[in-house]
Amino acid sequence: MTKRVYNFYPGPATLPLPVLERAQKEFLDFEGTGMSVLEISHRTPEYDKMHNDAIDLLKEIMGIPDEYKVLWLQGGASTQFFMVPANLQVPGKPMEYVDTGTWATKAIKEAKFYGDVKVVASSEEDKFTHVPQDIAFSEGAAFAHITGNNTIYGTEFQSWPDCPDEVPLVCDMSSNLMEQSMDVRKFGVIYAGAQKNLGPAGVTLVIVREDLLDRVPENIPTLQRWKTETAKNSLFHTPPVFAIYMCKLSLDYMKELGGVPEIEKRNREKAGYLYDVIDTSDGFYKGYARIDSRSLMNVTFTMTTPELENKVVEEGLAKGFVGLKGHRSVGGMRASIYNAMPVEGVKSLAEFLTVFKEENQ
Amino acid sequence: MTKRVYNFYPGPATLPLPVLERAQKEFLDFEGTGMSVLEISHRTPEYDKMHNDAIDLLKEIMGIPDEYKVLWLQGGASTQFFMVPANLQVPGKPMEYVDTGTWATKAIKEAKFYGDVKVVASSEEDKFTHVPQDIAFSEGAAFAHITGNNTIYGTEFQSWPDCPDEVPLVCDMSSNLMEQSMDVRKFGVIYAGAQKNLGPAGVTLVIVREDLLDRVPENIPTLQRWKTETAKNSLFHTPPVFAIYMCKLSLDYMKELGGVPEIEKRNREKAGYLYDVIDTSDGFYKGYARIDSRSLMNVTFTMTTPELENKVVEEGLAKGFVGLKGHRSVGGMRASIYNAMPVEGVKSLAEFLTVFKEENQ
Repeated sequence: MTKRVYNFYPGPATLPLPVLERAQKEFLDFEGTGMSVLEISHRTPEYDKMHNDAIDLLKEIMGIPDEYKVLWLQGGASTQFFMVPANLQVPGKPMEYVDTGTWATKAIKEAKFYGDVKVVASSEEDKFTHVPQDIAFSEGAAFAHITGNNTIYGTEFQSWPDCPDEVPLVCDMSSNLMEQSMDVRKFGVIYAGAQKNLGPAGVTLVIVREDLLDRVPENIPTLQRWKTETAKNSLFHTPPVFAIYMCKLSLDYMKELGGVPEIEKRNREKAGYLYDVIDTSDGFYKGYARIDSRSLMNVTFTMTTPELENKVVEEGLAKGFVGLKGHRSVGGMRASIYNAMPVEGVKSLAEFLTVFKEENQ
Repeated sequence: MTKRVYNFYPGPATLPLPVLERAQKEFLDFEGTGMSVLEISHRTPEYDKMHNDAIDLLKEIMGIPDEYKVLWLQGGASTQFFMVPANLQVPGKPMEYVDTGTWATKAIKEAKFYGDVKVVASSEEDKFTHVPQDIAFSEGAAFAHITGNNTIYGTEFQSWPDCPDEVPLVCDMSSNLMEQSMDVRKFGVIYAGAQKNLGPAGVTLVIVREDLLDRVPENIPTLQRWKTETAKNSLFHTPPVFAIYMCKLSLDYMKELGGVPEIEKRNREKAGYLYDVIDTSDGFYKGYARIDSRSLMNVTFTMTTPELENKVVEEGLAKGFVGLKGHRSVGGMRASIYNAMPVEGVKSLAEFLTVFKEENQ
């Protein structure tokens, strides 16, 4: 077997090795059923227990109050870009968005198919190097939408924006889910593709406050309504069994680790190593994100020449650091260090970057 | 490890043991990348190769002509129930459906959100015990829709209905995909959840003739259009990587086996064992489906008393035959014997049913 690499790709992303090893071990026989989890019917008691255990674990680890429903859906956050306005639109009320770059921009585009969209704040003029600071959502908004973390730019909300009491705040947390302690009650809806911070690609988490489920009009197709799946506990039709199972194993692991407080501690330590290297490099490495908007999950930086950038990516690759090339719209480098990235991996990368600087400055 | 059972559930369904064993073996290191396939970015060359190999294999095994696009999507056939009318509607033209029971009925329900639906044939009056024989789609229809196999009733089209040249025939093949040789050119669109005949739950196959992609109106959300994904080879956003990978391994296995001709031969042999038991049981077992509509994939039958039905399910379970209980809307028993069910499993079940009859009649 090839030596395990440190995977800094922006997603799908690394998973905890013990989780992968457990899945491999159980692969041919799920819970003594004599079937692989890949083969088991979603109408069996064994599946049902796993499905519900995953929900309960998530509720426990994230501190999700009883008035919220947890859904395992398909189609990624990109599907939620249209599901959110489809379910939360209110005729005559604007849907308000903050534009923090690519993914937020895509969410805005989809909402426009459903009605009046107001972009209340944007950092586009500054090339999305930060999240807007003064955000004022209207009292009359149908809902308010933000993108919690912006993978491409490496920016992140440092605190959640204020939102009028009656206006549900909706957050795409695909890239910062369970990254740090937070109060779920701040939000009406949280959604996230699993493939960065929770599990593999193929399952999408939606956490929705129950009172919001009654807004959806009757004249949209059955599977475009969250209500269809909340009424059936995400079992209206065949769920993505294996992806949910992998999330369950990840959640078991996170709980054992100490839950979100411990994950947050590690995340701050990890991000600290890299930002320290950048900040003490005398401009050899230049952070892309403004310091007041820096992400714990995606550390973005550029260098003085494209040659140096290519060289660091190549030498890094040879040392087992993969996925360091930045998104083409920003250039430079990006280290995605989601929940499952080991501290050791980031520490090694920081050491490598320090040595690289000494050898190349 | 528990002894491997014979899984007769209607889906998710059994997978070939060699396929599972290969996935287990490769689980921690995909193609020498030092990452699990569950972790690998969909933007890597290694992923790209696998993704395209899976498409090429499918095209080869099913004989899909060049003018068709193959998509790996999410959301199951249930999502295609609304995607089909969303993409193929033509203002002023009726969408024509054949109602062969539950799943066809659900597809009809979703089409009604998009326009005028005409049910041109239905076997509802006969409790869906057969597929309608005389089906006349109109020349002026936007498209014609059928459900190839009906899992709940155990009925199946024995030959594809005629359809006017200009009208694309659309088929939900979730439960009879690659079951037997067929001419893809008969169809404008074929769609199927993978979890019965191809792979695990979590990926949906859509095969669409290219000229049909231009019908879709511009005013529907990006991910509700097939065109979004055909333009990006199903990589517009993160695909369900692992589910596609499992399909790829299954397709490798099917090819090695001899492709669809060999699968068809086995499927006919398997179904033959069970229908023989039913037909020679002097009414002890009573087939639900009319003989002229019998499915190769789901063999449905009832018995003279509920007590006997419970008894056969229980005794079967003790012998390692799981999932034999029929759908609640039909009652009785159902043996789902999809492509990956070994001949040996069906033969053993047939023997068990014969002995059970002798002991209980």
